[in-house]
Amino acid sequence: MQHIADQTFDILIEGGTALTLSQNREIIEDAVIGIAGGWIGFISDKNDPVCRGLKAKERIQADRCLVMPGLINTHTHLPMVCFRGMADDLPLMDWLTKHIFPAEAKYATKQMVHDGALLAMAEMILSGTTTFCDGYFFENQVAQAALDCGLRAVVCQGFADFATPDPSDFKKMMAAASRFVARWQSHSPLITPAFFCHSPYTCSPETLVNVKEAAREAGILYLIHLLENSDESGMIEKKYGKTPVAHLLDLGVLDETTVAVHCNWLTDGDIDVFADLGVGVSHNPRSSMKLAAGIAPVPRMIDKGLEVGLGTDGAASNNNLDMFTEMDSCAKIHKVAALNPAVMDARSVVQTATIGGARLLGLGKVVGSLEAGKQADIIIVDMDQPHLTPLYRPYSQLVYAARGADVKTSIVAGRLLLRDRKLLTLDVDAAITRVREIARAISSDRNPS
Amino acid sequence: MQHIADQTFDILIEGGTALTLSQNREIIEDAVIGIAGGWIGFISDKNDPVCRGLKAKERIQADRCLVMPGLINTHTHLPMVCFRGMADDLPLMDWLTKHIFPAEAKYATKQMVHDGALLAMAEMILSGTTTFCDGYFFENQVAQAALDCGLRAVVCQGFADFATPDPSDFKKMMAAASRFVARWQSHSPLITPAFFCHSPYTCSPETLVNVKEAAREAGILYLIHLLENSDESGMIEKKYGKTPVAHLLDLGVLDETTVAVHCNWLTDGDIDVFADLGVGVSHNPRSSMKLAAGIAPVPRMIDKGLEVGLGTDGAASNNNLDMFTEMDSCAKIHKVAALNPAVMDARSVVQTATIGGARLLGLGKVVGSLEAGKQADIIIVDMDQPHLTPLYRPYSQLVYAARGADVKTSIVAGRLLLRDRKLLTLDVDAAITRVREIARAISSDRNPS
Repeated sequence: MQHIADQTFDILIEGGTALTLSQNREIIEDAVIGIAGGWIGFISDKNDPVCRGLKAKERIQADRCLVMPGLINTHTHLPMVCFRGMADDLPLMDWLTKHIFPAEAKYATKQMVHDGALLAMAEMILSGTTTFCDGYFFENQVAQAALDCGLRAVVCQGFADFATPDPSDFKKMMAAASRFVARWQSHSPLITPAFFCHSPYTCSPETLVNVKEAAREAGILYLIHLLENSDESGMIEKKYGKTPVAHLLDLGVLDETTVAVHCNWLTDGDIDVFADLGVGVSHNPRSSMKLAAGIAPVPRMIDKGLEVGLGTDGAASNNNLDMFTEMDSCAKIHKVAALNPAVMDARSVVQTATIGGARLLGLGKVVGSLEAGKQADIIIVDMDQPHLTPLYRPYSQLVYAARGADVKTSIVAGRLLLRDRKLLTLDVDAAITRVREIARAISSDRNPS
Repeated sequence: MQHIADQTFDILIEGGTALTLSQNREIIEDAVIGIAGGWIGFISDKNDPVCRGLKAKERIQADRCLVMPGLINTHTHLPMVCFRGMADDLPLMDWLTKHIFPAEAKYATKQMVHDGALLAMAEMILSGTTTFCDGYFFENQVAQAALDCGLRAVVCQGFADFATPDPSDFKKMMAAASRFVARWQSHSPLITPAFFCHSPYTCSPETLVNVKEAAREAGILYLIHLLENSDESGMIEKKYGKTPVAHLLDLGVLDETTVAVHCNWLTDGDIDVFADLGVGVSHNPRSSMKLAAGIAPVPRMIDKGLEVGLGTDGAASNNNLDMFTEMDSCAKIHKVAALNPAVMDARSVVQTATIGGARLLGLGKVVGSLEAGKQADIIIVDMDQPHLTPLYRPYSQLVYAARGADVKTSIVAGRLLLRDRKLLTLDVDAAITRVREIARAISSDRNPS
């Protein structure tokens, strides 16, 4: 590596408090961070003699700010922003079968996926997310939109066979999945393909196993919705004579590259199984609260050493993609559920939203903390505001007082996506206009005049 | 009343969707609202012929916005912003006795109350609150700060006698309380004085009764923290041989001008007592979640006809004063607690934050809805943003997707306090600087170098 004094950094972030989420020097006051070629080349504080006279093409002042790793949204369905607020406060099955599924059947086109994903990306950039993991139809569109606006993404090819799968359909599905992986696996360091089996109750055992085998072969993540609702256990036990986790265990699909999403009804025994096998969990507290699905036993998961990442789920069941609000609700719901305010302290919560999420998605060596040698995925949070004054302890302030709108600047792989609240890589007005048009069609369809 | 065509309004708000929270014409598209002399003089839509050629000194365009009554924060301790984030994630008694009480003993001066209250007011205006109900030391300072920046306030003189009260002390306390009421009762339509007995476990029966008698005599509200934590019942039963609600009932302090705050452990029988007597409840979900105090049975309270208002509590236990986040958490916590997503629908939640809160505080004829003849306490929420797109149903969007930072403009009693996110009636930088100085002293005291 070039000596830093001889180097001209692409970007130098100067001042502010860095929450590095790194094991050495977790909090750095008056931080100086040098970014070159998309990577963090240097991180120290302004009193470090080597920081004198550093050269940079662009300098960002971060006084009165927190500088931290970009947030990692480990589970979402971005194009569902098109259904944001379309139907709420309804029993889950009514919501799904009378509103969401019919709207998807008619409107979830390639174009809708593209337009919805772009709008969602604007929202995510404006609220501090730099990496997301998405599962929906037409994920090629989502991947392309992420590349266009510069976000880092795990994009999931989805699998479900609501009826008994036809073997030839299945072959076609797997061929499409292979093409998806081939297309994205080495395309860009920003994009990581993965497979997403919808759930144990919508995927046959054959699908669950075959997809896992293909995922192992490709060396990619395998995700699955699991135990979101209390009735899933009964359904699976009736069908297979065992609990959902025992079912997946016996099928051999649980390992350290499997990510189970939601897990609201995981038992203590299930958690032990996950701990033994290295299965991680994506926790989506606000969606599960709004859908009244349940409260995941996250404090116990963390005690047992499970990797837990935070996620928002789709905007039809949240109804936004703001990881700050998600952190706040995550901390609070577990305290009140346990009647113990010491549960899920602020630092643990920030960890699930950064390095924990990165590790969950297999990106722990690439992002999730601020360290020399990692990709420069960095957000700057403006703390010079009434609701963030005074500032005693940064983790508390981030989790309990800050919100997405406090993110001032966002950088992914060394590229500025947001500067002083201005989006630099996408046309937000166009994205808003296109989604409004989609919503107009949906509305007139739902309420014919 | 002057005919509206002949009148020159002080302010005319034009365009946008008005959520009036009024029983007639609850939602008005392309609304037109005329404000004169601090009052709403006129509200209709632009297609109404009388809207043609209306004259106004100032016009505010509200296209792509929601126009609604200002939010009503029915319970807070504003000066505690000085302790925001000072100590979190701790067992309640450690938090109180090792951190909050010592800090208050040393730092809760008149100056701190004034400076903290002003900063809190900046935060509240920036997040859509137009009326608050506050209880703390030196409430004269809070009342004066509210007047200075133009917010509407119920300011509470507090009572507690941790030890056995000395009769002469009590006399002095009541004399001070009388002076407080005399000073504020007819001083300004913005300020309403009230009495706040801290709780059944910190106030003797004599104090509870005498203060209630004085409140009745003055015709003012009587507030009390009640059943915030699960151990309160045991404490009161041990001391008085009855439950806290039975204790207050027997003392005769429960009536339609009594507001009980928190009420996380109210039983079904307690709710019936409250319903019979017209006792209302201030519900503070985020504080009770963070302190792991409990989940109030709000859906049942509402079913039984109790008046329920929303509140944030102080910023030491929340840790912000954002009523939007409070609405979101209110809707979600009750859904997941009941495992029923139909509980606390978005409209009901907005009601607790507006007209419900107004009625709870005895201001239901003055504020809480947009109607001709009510005071002009109005906020304008900017919906032209990625996270608020598309817009199918305004109540859902407000509760589940919007946040305080989306409030663009705020008006109280016809006076503009915020316009396009700019605070017009207070010097926010000065307020921030002063609270930082207080926090610096507290920090160096807690962590002597």
